Amino acid sequence: MSSDFETELGPETEMETSAFRDAEDRINSLWLERLRAFLAAGRAEDVALVMEPLHAADVGDVLELLDHDERLALVRLLGEKFDYSALTEVDESIRLELMEALPNAEIARGVAGLDSDDAVAILEDLEEEDQNEILSALPTFERLSLKRSLDFPEDSAGRRMQTEFIATPPFWTVGQMIDYLRAERDLPDEFYQIYVVDAGYKVLGTLPLDRVLRAQRATKIESIMNTNLVLVDAAEDQEEAARAFERYDLVEVGVVDENGRLVGVLTIDDMVDVITEEADEDIKLLAGVGDEDVSDTTFDTVRSRAPWLAVNLVTAVLVSLVIGLFGGTIDSMVELAVLMPIVASMGGNAGAQTMTVTVRAIAMRELEGGRLRRLIRREMVVGFFNGVIFAILIGLVTWLRYSNPQLGVVIGMAMITNLVVAGTAGILIPLTLDRFKADPAIASAVFVTTVTDVVGFFAFLGIAGLWFGLF
Amino acid sequence: MSSDFETELGPETEMETSAFRDAEDRINSLWLERLRAFLAAGRAEDVALVMEPLHAADVGDVLELLDHDERLALVRLLGEKFDYSALTEVDESIRLELMEALPNAEIARGVAGLDSDDAVAILEDLEEEDQNEILSALPTFERLSLKRSLDFPEDSAGRRMQTEFIATPPFWTVGQMIDYLRAERDLPDEFYQIYVVDAGYKVLGTLPLDRVLRAQRATKIESIMNTNLVLVDAAEDQEEAARAFERYDLVEVGVVDENGRLVGVLTIDDMVDVITEEADEDIKLLAGVGDEDVSDTTFDTVRSRAPWLAVNLVTAVLVSLVIGLFGGTIDSMVELAVLMPIVASMGGNAGAQTMTVTVRAIAMRELEGGRLRRLIRREMVVGFFNGVIFAILIGLVTWLRYSNPQLGVVIGMAMITNLVVAGTAGILIPLTLDRFKADPAIASAVFVTTVTDVVGFFAFLGIAGLWFGLF
Repeated sequence: MSSDFETELGPETEMETSAFRDAEDRINSLWLERLRAFLAAGRAEDVALVMEPLHAADVGDVLELLDHDERLALVRLLGEKFDYSALTEVDESIRLELMEALPNAEIARGVAGLDSDDAVAILEDLEEEDQNEILSALPTFERLSLKRSLDFPEDSAGRRMQTEFIATPPFWTVGQMIDYLRAERDLPDEFYQIYVVDAGYKVLGTLPLDRVLRAQRATKIESIMNTNLVLVDAAEDQEEAARAFERYDLVEVGVVDENGRLVGVLTIDDMVDVITEEADEDIKLLAGVGDEDVSDTTFDTVRSRAPWLAVNLVTAVLVSLVIGLFGGTIDSMVELAVLMPIVASMGGNAGAQTMTVTVRAIAMRELEGGRLRRLIRREMVVGFFNGVIFAILIGLVTWLRYSNPQLGVVIGMAMITNLVVAGTAGILIPLTLDRFKADPAIASAVFVTTVTDVVGFFAFLGIAGLWFGLF
Repeated sequence: MSSDFETELGPETEMETSAFRDAEDRINSLWLERLRAFLAAGRAEDVALVMEPLHAADVGDVLELLDHDERLALVRLLGEKFDYSALTEVDESIRLELMEALPNAEIARGVAGLDSDDAVAILEDLEEEDQNEILSALPTFERLSLKRSLDFPEDSAGRRMQTEFIATPPFWTVGQMIDYLRAERDLPDEFYQIYVVDAGYKVLGTLPLDRVLRAQRATKIESIMNTNLVLVDAAEDQEEAARAFERYDLVEVGVVDENGRLVGVLTIDDMVDVITEEADEDIKLLAGVGDEDVSDTTFDTVRSRAPWLAVNLVTAVLVSLVIGLFGGTIDSMVELAVLMPIVASMGGNAGAQTMTVTVRAIAMRELEGGRLRRLIRREMVVGFFNGVIFAILIGLVTWLRYSNPQLGVVIGMAMITNLVVAGTAGILIPLTLDRFKADPAIASAVFVTTVTDVVGFFAFLGIAGLWFGLF
């Protein structure tokens, strides 16, 4: 990760033709047009000149804004000056598209200069054949350390870790450590703590850099190291690791293999990405959208969304069968057909509210012991109170609209029923899915709306049928 | 923030009666029961013994699991041993409840020992009277620095910043800096970089600690400092600051006042909280849930959700008026009432998919220039293709169910219409709200489902009326 970048946040930033971002923090369209013109004309030197001051993250943003041909032209014109870590900042579809277009030897050269975590992020989505070809073109040490990371399961801490770190024996003094750091040329780009290990690379303690700087030269490292260790298993899921960072305000954590040997470190910047992706995934799953990016093609988007719509079609047909049971009832009182979507719609909304709060609480591990019971009780009571409020409102509206107070009572009773059911289903369905180790964000919405639709139509048409003697 | 905590992640963790967390990373219920027993018996020493090894974040989790009286007992029995930074880790309702129960003098004592960002987080939600009483009980220096933070707008960088930082003149050498750090007793608890400032506290550069450690003693600080500065305006929104951390993989950033003077620093741990809250807020707003926690009371929950349900009631009644226009049509063909929710439901789902992707893309600033046009085109085409797929499916189902191929054609045509409209509305509505500076996550869902319901019922009943000559 390079740190050559110029950015100023805040209102004092001035807008210039040559500025990279405008006052709204968007990429300046004039800047972008100039780059496009340089790319079209193949002016490699000018391209290098405008791209040079950008941080890798900004280069990633630029790549996402360009067309397919322009992206390729940018990488080719920059040549050795293209920082491959920018590829860790773009959507997967764009990364794969570029990797397919570039020769493997070229990719190997670009990846060789990266921190291991960035290199793994670029290589992990490639097909095995390409992966092997690129790896075999790398120096032995790099190849082995990347291979080891890639051998860990997808989304594990081992995949995200950086294999460069600084380790020291416990009997060194602070002075020895500082002398070593001053003399050694091959240090990681950035580091926040030093790992104190025994001869077998088992971690004995950690030493944040500020402690090194506060201590006298003669101080033994073991006397100032932090021994309350937080270590992450390499095979562990990255989400678990991210949760530890979040909970304990960590900046860097050691990763150990199955024998307890230190094999790498996780840094907060990678964990921030995991946390963001995680929340993003929950939002999208709740809405029936899979792992989808704005740069996906039309075909990929149809393929990713159609299955969710198909499930919804099945449940919608099911709901319609329930309505079909009351064909005769509707036939003798057409107002029922006009009013029935109201009860179902309110139930769907109330259910979605409870479900969303529950899904998030599960994801953030907020439901333990007594809290869970309290929440279930609360949701049922909330459903009842909201049910009463909206029963009265819709009852009055219906009465006025059809001059039929009895129809108002019927729809009000159906409303209370459906909102209590919505609250109950909204909390119990995600909890049950979680109990059975399913991701509650994926399937809850379908189940909850099916329940509130079925109960909404059934309660309203059923109560109406009984009340008005229509069966 | 204390770092006295014992935690081991990963499968090797063993379950013991006395372990704080079980293998699933949940708080051990046996441990909790023991604490409850100690609290009930008022055994202060035992309470202190079991709480002492916990990190502030874990103390926060414990507070959330306890009942109101137990929480208060815990804080009282721990007395001076209670680390007030734990209060930054609990839901707002619990924090306020505790603060109301504790005397202001006691709070002042607890807050005095904290980093300024934690103290502000605890004080900012209090009523001004209590705030002033607590502030006036603090030593002058603390009081002034907290007051300055509190004067910045809510959710600004100035509110989140820590006012403790290390600054150095540019002409110092690395050796002078290290000697200063070794001699000075009153340093921040943790720090990741040093700020190089001029006499007016204007930032000239930053110096990550690893650069200090790599450099020779005689090296001038200005020769190794990082001059590509990222600074945040104190008045700026915390989300903007968090986006900078995320984009540029930062760990610490300086905060400057309107005169460009360094007044504090933001650290990544606070920004992680902002990022998480932000995503959480988007999820909840999309589902019509406000700023709500699982520990909110029933009354607060009803009050926070009822307005959203009220808006939904209005739109549901509107939709029902549209259906009412077709009362005669439904009366002469009751199958229409049975089938009509299917088209509306599919449109609602497809609209929610597009809307969610759009809202997230807006939140993550992924829609600029050409990308936006591409996305709008894609969503309309995706709507058309999914429309055709599900038109054929529902057409066949309807044909078979009612032995009426014409009804199949009608529902298919309505399906294509509604899914194209859903895709278009799903992207244009959030974009329009964003253009008018409204938060698209708040209002999009209501508008989009209203559109897909109205169009769904209108298209289906309208096409049916025309096709079968029912008007």
